Order: sequence, then C-alpha cells, then structure tokens
Amino acid sequence: MRLRPRDDVDVQDRLARSAAETAGVWMSTPEVAGWLARRAGAHRFRVERIPFGLLDGWSFGPGGNLAHRSGRFFSVEGLHIVAGEDPVPEWRQPIIVQPEIGVLGILAKEFNGVLHFLMQAKMEPGNPRLVQLSPTVQATRSNYTRVHGGAPVRYLGYFTGQERGQERGQERGRVLVDVLQSEHGSWFFRKSNRNMIVETRDNVEVGDDFCWLTLGQIGRLLRRDNVVNMDARTVLACAPAAPPEAGAALSDTELVSWFTAERSRHEVRTRLVPLDEVSGWTTGEWSIDHERDRYFRVIAVSAEAGSREVHRWTQPLFEPLGAGVAAFLVRRFGGVPHLLVRARVEGGFLGTVELGPTVQCTPESYVHLPVSRRPRFLATVLGADPGRIRYEAVHAEEGGRFYRAQSRYLLVDADERTAAADPPPGFMWVTPGQLNSLARHSHYVNVQARTLLAVLNSRAAEL
Amino acid sequence: MRLRPRDDVDVQDRLARSAAETAGVWMSTPEVAGWLARRAGAHRFRVERIPFGLLDGWSFGPGGNLAHRSGRFFSVEGLHIVAGEDPVPEWRQPIIVQPEIGVLGILAKEFNGVLHFLMQAKMEPGNPRLVQLSPTVQATRSNYTRVHGGAPVRYLGYFTGQERGQERGQERGRVLVDVLQSEHGSWFFRKSNRNMIVETRDNVEVGDDFCWLTLGQIGRLLRRDNVVNMDARTVLACAPAAPPEAGAALSDTELVSWFTAERSRHEVRTRLVPLDEVSGWTTGEWSIDHERDRYFRVIAVSAEAGSREVHRWTQPLFEPLGAGVAAFLVRRFGGVPHLLVRARVEGGFLGTVELGPTVQCTPESYVHLPVSRRPRFLATVLGADPGRIRYEAVHAEEGGRFYRAQSRYLLVDADERTAAADPPPGFMWVTPGQLNSLARHSHYVNVQARTLLAVLNSRAAEL
Repeated sequence: MRLRPRDDVDVQDRLARSAAETAGVWMSTPEVAGWLARRAGAHRFRVERIPFGLLDGWSFGPGGNLAHRSGRFFSVEGLHIVAGEDPVPEWRQPIIVQPEIGVLGILAKEFNGVLHFLMQAKMEPGNPRLVQLSPTVQATRSNYTRVHGGAPVRYLGYFTGQERGQERGQERGRVLVDVLQSEHGSWFFRKSNRNMIVETRDNVEVGDDFCWLTLGQIGRLLRRDNVVNMDARTVLACAPAAPPEAGAALSDTELVSWFTAERSRHEVRTRLVPLDEVSGWTTGEWSIDHERDRYFRVIAVSAEAGSREVHRWTQPLFEPLGAGVAAFLVRRFGGVPHLLVRARVEGGFLGTVELGPTVQCTPESYVHLPVSRRPRFLATVLGADPGRIRYEAVHAEEGGRFYRAQSRYLLVDADERTAAADPPPGFMWVTPGQLNSLARHSHYVNVQARTLLAVLNSRAAEL
Repeated sequence: MRLRPRDDVDVQDRLARSAAETAGVWMSTPEVAGWLARRAGAHRFRVERIPFGLLDGWSFGPGGNLAHRSGRFFSVEGLHIVAGEDPVPEWRQPIIVQPEIGVLGILAKEFNGVLHFLMQAKMEPGNPRLVQLSPTVQATRSNYTRVHGGAPVRYLGYFTGQERGQERGQERGRVLVDVLQSEHGSWFFRKSNRNMIVETRDNVEVGDDFCWLTLGQIGRLLRRDNVVNMDARTVLACAPAAPPEAGAALSDTELVSWFTAERSRHEVRTRLVPLDEVSGWTTGEWSIDHERDRYFRVIAVSAEAGSREVHRWTQPLFEPLGAGVAAFLVRRFGGVPHLLVRARVEGGFLGTVELGPTVQCTPESYVHLPVSRRPRFLATVLGADPGRIRYEAVHAEEGGRFYRAQSRYLLVDADERTAAADPPPGFMWVTPGQLNSLARHSHYVNVQARTLLAVLNSRAAEL
C-alpha cells in the first residue's frame, strides 16, 4: 500500500488561489445574474399557498403530526424543550423532523490551474428569489433513492459513489471536504447534512442549469442579496481555506475546552411530543400559528418547477414572521482579526450547543420584552456606524423548508467600548482560521455562522 | 491582549517524555500494587447484592422505569432501536439514562522536568478488584453539586474552575485536554463525560488516597489486569501523545470522509420507551433479566466505602453475562503501524456511529448464532498465535454503573491473509496518530477503542 500524507496542504493554497480569482473561464461574474434570470425564464416556476386540505400525500395523523404517507421526507411534530435558563426556561413549539441525512455536494475542477466549482441554478419553493446559485447536488436521501419517483439526480455519483470508491481505490474524484453539519436548530430536530466538495479531472458534461465559477466569483456574488443559496454557503464554509494567522486569543486546546465547558454547563432536555400537545399553537385550515402571532407559522404550498426531478408537488413550509439578523462583531488583537462567537443553545441541536454569530435573532420576537432581556450586542449591531460595516447582505435560509426566511448577515467592526477583549460569559473571541478548523468537524459551527464563514473563505469580505 | 500560539506543540513532547519515564518521583511502579492494597485495607469496603425492594431512594415508577426520587443520578428505562440491518434489525432493551455531564479530570504537574499525574485509589462498587487507579476527580454533576449531601469533591476546583478562569485569565492551571466523550453505547443512552487533564504549578497537598505517577508508570500498570480503571483510561486516551508518522493509508480528510459516509449510510432511529414496554425482559425481585438469560441483567447493590464522599449507599448496576473482547488487528504499511477500526452502530450513541476496535463483543452472546453471523475477525483474534499478541490484559468497565463488566483487551498482529490491506465495508486502516487526533474531538472514538489508545499513549504496548 502506498501511504499518503495526512495533511493535504496543497488544497488550502489552491482554494486561496481560487478565492483570489474573480474572473472565471466559464462566464464573467457580472454575467451570472443575467444567466440566473434566463434559467428562471427557461422553465415554468410557480409557488402558491394552499390550505392543508389540498396537500397531496401529506396529512395530519394521530397526535396531530403533519407527515407524508410514505413515512419519508420530513414531518412537522412538537418539541418540548427544558433549558432551565432565562429568558425562556421551558417551551413547546412545532419542529421539522427529518432524520435522513442528505447530500450537499459541490463538484470542483481545475481550469487554467484555478479551481472552479460547478454551481446550479436551482429553484426552491421558499426562496424569495426563486432560482438561486446552489450546490451541484442538493438531495435528501428520499430524493436520491427516488422515493418521489422523479428523474435521477445529476452528478450524484461523484458524491455517493465515494462510499465504495474510497474503499476500493476506484475513486471518481478527490474528496476535499466531507463533513456532517447541523442546520437551523430552532426549526429542525437534529437534522444534519453531508457537506461535500469533490474534485474531478473528468470531462464533465455541463447541463443547461449549471456553470463553473471560481471561489472568488462566488464571493463577489455573495455581496449581493439572495443570489447564493444556503446550501452553497454551508458547503463553502467547510472548505479548508484558513488564512495564515500569527496566533489567537486562545490556543486551539483552550478554545475546545471553553466549548466543552459551555456544552457541559447547559443541561438542556428535549423531547418530541405530538403536535396536538404543543400548547399556545393552533392548527387552522391554512396554517399552524402561535397564539400571539409570534416566531413563525407552518403553511402549505403547491409548487411547479419544470427544471426539477419532480415537476409538480405540494409540501408544508415554515414561514418565519419577521426578518432575522446574524452578525459577527470583529476586532483585531495583535494584528489578527477575531470574531466574537456565541455558544448558542438551540433545541434541535444534537449536541445542545454550537458556536453561532455574536448576534442571531429575529428582532421582532423580542419587542415585547424589556430592553434588558433583548439579545446582547443587538443594539450595537443595529446601530453601527456605516463605516464600521465590513459586510452586509440579505440571504435566504433553506428554500426547500422555509418560506421567505431572510436574514441580514453582517460583519461589524467593534472596539473595547462596544465589545471588550474580555467577553461576557457565553461569548469568546476566535480567529477565522480557528472557526474554519472547527468547521472541518461536525457540530461545532452553526449554519448562520457558516454563512459568514463562507463570506470570509470566498473573500466576499476582508477583515 | 497577548496572542498565544494556536498549537501547543510542547505538550506532545512533554507527554512523550512522561511516557518514556517508568520511574516516578513519588513511588516506584512495583510499589503501586502494594499501595493500592494498603488503601483498600485502610477503609471498610463492602458490596452486597440486595433485592430492588431494599434500594433506598430508588423505585420503579409509572411505566416501570427505575429511578431515584431526586430525579438525579441516572435511571433505567427502555430503548427501542430500529437499525434496519443484520444481524438484528430492530430490538428493545433496558438502558441507563444519565443526561448530566460528569467530570473525569486528571491533575498533572512537572517533577524533575517530567509530567506526573495525580491518580486516586478509588473504590467503585462494580469493580472486580474494588479499589483501582482512577482520575484525580471522577464526579457526576449530581456528585459535585452535592445532591447526595456528601463531602465536597477534592481537587474539583482545578477542573470546574476553568469555566470562569479561562474567561477571566485567572487560571488555576493550564488545560492540556478537555473534550466530551461518549461511554458504552450499548448500555448508556447518549451519555457523555468531560475528559480533562489540567497542569498546575501549585504546591498540591496530596491526600492519602492519591499519588503522582508518570505516564510511563501508568503504562506499566496497564499491562496488569484490573489496576487502571476505565475513567483513567479514557482520559489518558485523549492526551495529544501522537507519535510521528510518515503518512497513512488515507489522508485525514479522506478518513473523516469515510467516517461521514459511514454515519450517513446507517439510518438508525432510537426512542426511549417505558421499561414495561421492553418485550423479552422481565422485572423480578432481584433482577431485570432477558428471557433467555442473554446480554446482561440489572441488579441492585448496597455499598459501603469509608473513603468516599458518601459512606453508604444503594444503587442499581448493569451486570453483563459473559466477558467481553475488544481487540485491534494491527498491520504495518510502509513502515507505519495501522489499526483496523470498525465504524460501529451502538443504540446509545449521540451520532449513530463511532469508531471502535476491530472486534468488540461478548462472544457468549453469539454462540446461538451460525458462524456466518458471528462478528467478523473474532475467530482471528481468539485464535491468534501467542507470538502475534502485542498486548493483552483484562480491564473492567465503569464500576459505578457496571457490575464486574470485564473485557479482554488485545492488540494482535495481522497479515494480508488474516486482514487484507483493502478492508471489508465498515472497516478502515488508520494510524494511532490519526485515532489520537480524532480523540481530541467528541464522538469519533468509542470508549473501548480509547482504552486501547491509552495503552499506546502510555507505551504499555509498542507497535
């Protein structure tokens, strides 16, 4: 057997080169928006709200849970969370239960010595702009085992073929990234997806809805609202694109120790309960609503998309009430940029706690609370002088499950007055390189923090 | 703020030096057995089986679950596991539910330039030899928040004090290791403990039941049966004592990718159920038994230990029927030793799959099955020529929860005929250094594999 080096240091350099390249071989960056619009025009796309009664194959079962007759895809159930902490020590809520692990895969290939990524113009029913740049493959297990009876998923073999390929030495490509990551812990119960980048040397036939872009091009597009979808962002966040750093506020061991302490001190107990037992929420004909119209509602849509494996379908979606804010405060210590992460408890996390942005919330959910109980640093972010804003764009969360769930993502310069070097409990200063290293493993970095990490990896913003 | 290097490379060297040192400053290695015997004689220790009816504070509640009236410590409930795979696609069993995270902490200090570790002679009711070498601190949250009303836990501040200490820069010591690790996934539902090593420069007052030993001394003691307890073994496994390696069969990225694929392809669903609903098991006056007397039984004991925070108590324990075997097959590729790990599904794992030894089972549980359904490589391990056995010792599992749960741990040399370079699905060749790197994060390496990793870290065996 021929041994391989344990570290693939070349990958880091090649990703950095791709991030520096803002002109690709396939199309120029300014052309991408027009191409996306043309792809949106090439098919019939339509999304319409419907009452639950018109859902096809979905129904409310015993206990009030909303599920598909196949037992696959996902279901809407109840979650009882006992966190024992302020501001809300215990609550019940509807939650999406999707135990199967999907694949979010981006195919990579060198052109003229620069890595390009095969991005897809994909429609998702919940997207505010329906067609966005997505990974090459974005498929739940139900999708790719074809429970829905649709067409096969293109390029899937590069990703799922790895399982046998690696063991047999018959690889179709080289794996650059392959890690399970969580998604929104407030809306999903222990969901995780496989985030993959696979590099190929094949002559890849490029479908009409696909195009090759450099990491730098994707970075430029990340500066625009609602162009790059969540799935693409989370995959790119996991790329080992760590910048060189002279040091950090904490050593890596100390950082993992702080994280371990945060996980240990939160004793959160969660339990799935029938949706009927979620007090404070009511199931109506058109939606499941909170009694005070807060947080989100569950709705149903009928969707049509000529480009997808299945052309017409109906499904439930979660519709958040109010737009989110997700922001890192940024400071330089000893010349090295640091992000202020927060150890966040979210009811759906497998491991209780993950690292999120400094601020992550829907401000409207807090207006009924006194200022002292609003999220820490929210006022600093919302009131930041424009000169301090290093990055700002609106992005949508997973359009396959959420209806127009938009968040304003920011990177905001702070100083000792607004964010002290000695952070409050639950917060810590970490470097982008440290966050990047942690994102090579599961369940450290939450999906909102990963969007901002993708912004840094692709040089959409420089710190 | 003064930046620190992200890597603490000095720790690796200092651990290697301690592993090479088989004579400590405190007592010689041959003296340790005598000291343990003296400590066992210095207190009154007694363990007696009792009927459940004599348990104090413990009782069977609605649904038949066995729990403590405080709601703390742990409970015995039912688990329903749907794994969908051979040899057993679905089953129910009793399981220990212990959601709180405990601390397993070893205090370290340099004497004459060599790291020594403060080990405790600790009695646990389930240990076959009652008093064993244990971590400095071994405490559940119920212990150290003193739900049981006992004496305070000695040296605890070095470990739990870190939480605030790190944030405030008022450390009592330097953290060398601090990571959550799972325990037996067949007997515990999602249990994890904090595995810590903290180095101090304090003048530490050494209690009668404590002594300083080098890593090499502990290694020598690991060659003996039932001297070093499980908690000490799992903590030492997490020490960054990676040997230098020229390469590996898979790069680290490929290894994590293989692990991710293994996690993805097993769709295991687990659900806690009332113990009454665990068919095939019966609760009697003295024990909870499997209908065919297989696997394990749940019993109750009354224990007395003059040295512990609480001197007398009663509690349930799991008693396995038959001794376990846990073994790595070992091969050298390109001069670098490799261990054959197995991606194991255990019902109680948080993340479905963790890496275990090549063979891990209770052989007696399989005697009723045809040879083709017995664990792969079991015959190779049990039939190995003595000249191929690099390491062999019997160790007990957690004596605070298991009654005389003993396993024979082995490292066995293999060749192409007994274990091919191209391993069967679910198995992979990894280097000790790779396993060591993975053990710096949660939920990769299971507790049995960690015992064998501790054997390597402490040079109880050389490959």
